[in-house]
Amino acid sequence: MIEIEVKVRADHSKALPILKKIGAVKLGVENQSDVYFAAPYRDFAKTDEALRIRSLNDQAVMTYKGPKLDGISKTREEFETPVDEATTTQILHALGFSEAGVVRKKRDVFRAGEITVCLDAVEGLGEFLEVEIVAESEKELETSRAKLFELLKQFGAGEKDSIRTSYLEMVLEKNKG
Amino acid sequence: MIEIEVKVRADHSKALPILKKIGAVKLGVENQSDVYFAAPYRDFAKTDEALRIRSLNDQAVMTYKGPKLDGISKTREEFETPVDEATTTQILHALGFSEAGVVRKKRDVFRAGEITVCLDAVEGLGEFLEVEIVAESEKELETSRAKLFELLKQFGAGEKDSIRTSYLEMVLEKNKG
Repeated sequence: MIEIEVKVRADHSKALPILKKIGAVKLGVENQSDVYFAAPYRDFAKTDEALRIRSLNDQAVMTYKGPKLDGISKTREEFETPVDEATTTQILHALGFSEAGVVRKKRDVFRAGEITVCLDAVEGLGEFLEVEIVAESEKELETSRAKLFELLKQFGAGEKDSIRTSYLEMVLEKNKG
Repeated sequence: MIEIEVKVRADHSKALPILKKIGAVKLGVENQSDVYFAAPYRDFAKTDEALRIRSLNDQAVMTYKGPKLDGISKTREEFETPVDEATTTQILHALGFSEAGVVRKKRDVFRAGEITVCLDAVEGLGEFLEVEIVAESEKELETSRAKLFELLKQFGAGEKDSIRTSYLEMVLEKNKG
């Protein structure tokens, strides 16, 4: 599975009327708490990978994200499994993985055709808009990316606004300063 | 959670009437397929740890087992989470873990008081009997172990018969030869 995703900064009070205008359907709100893990044997910041346990409501999901596949979008390979949060955290700690950082956000999820639109309010970072298409393979990469940027035009955003830095990197950067 | 466990070789045709005599209740039969993983950064055979995905019926469970805590039983720390088998295997492979070996067995599970008794028919290895108590902490280790060996007496087995070698080690040893 390939996740083709573009993220930009966006004022939600301005983005909401545009979502309404284009007929996007609200799917729900999630309060996500993401714990990212560091491996004891390679530096995920350098290899551009991520291992995360996301908790929302009473559910938890473990996700691995591989290195980004291109220079503009945030396209990458992604594997995901539902897990028990507490014991999976214990397993990762026992294997020598440590917590690298935590990202907390309120995510309003919308659907606009085949595109998922997220309005993210990230604790300590501000407001963002993320658009995403999930594709079966890399073949659909170019077409999907074009569709995402076409939609982003409606919000006055272009390729130059694409933020490839992850929320985790932004949180870690902020904690440093 | 602490798993206090003793394993011995046992002829199932002889063990079954004894289980009946002591009033053990049959809980079920499981056809288990266990895939064990090797870490890219430490040798689980040396550290006496194990990371496993067990599939039975349509379910899968990922289990981490820590080093054994004593010299007689197979007591060790154990963390377990339900997972999706296919994507969890993909996550482990992406993280650099590789498959170390596979153990397939038919396990008949019985309950005798607080003790779980398993009759294991392991592909390529033969028939075994495993007795187990799950305890909250290491404090109960001595008492629980005594209870297990008390029960094993019924089957004509004692401390000298306790096999601390795992099925995986036995399978790998057999494949070598």
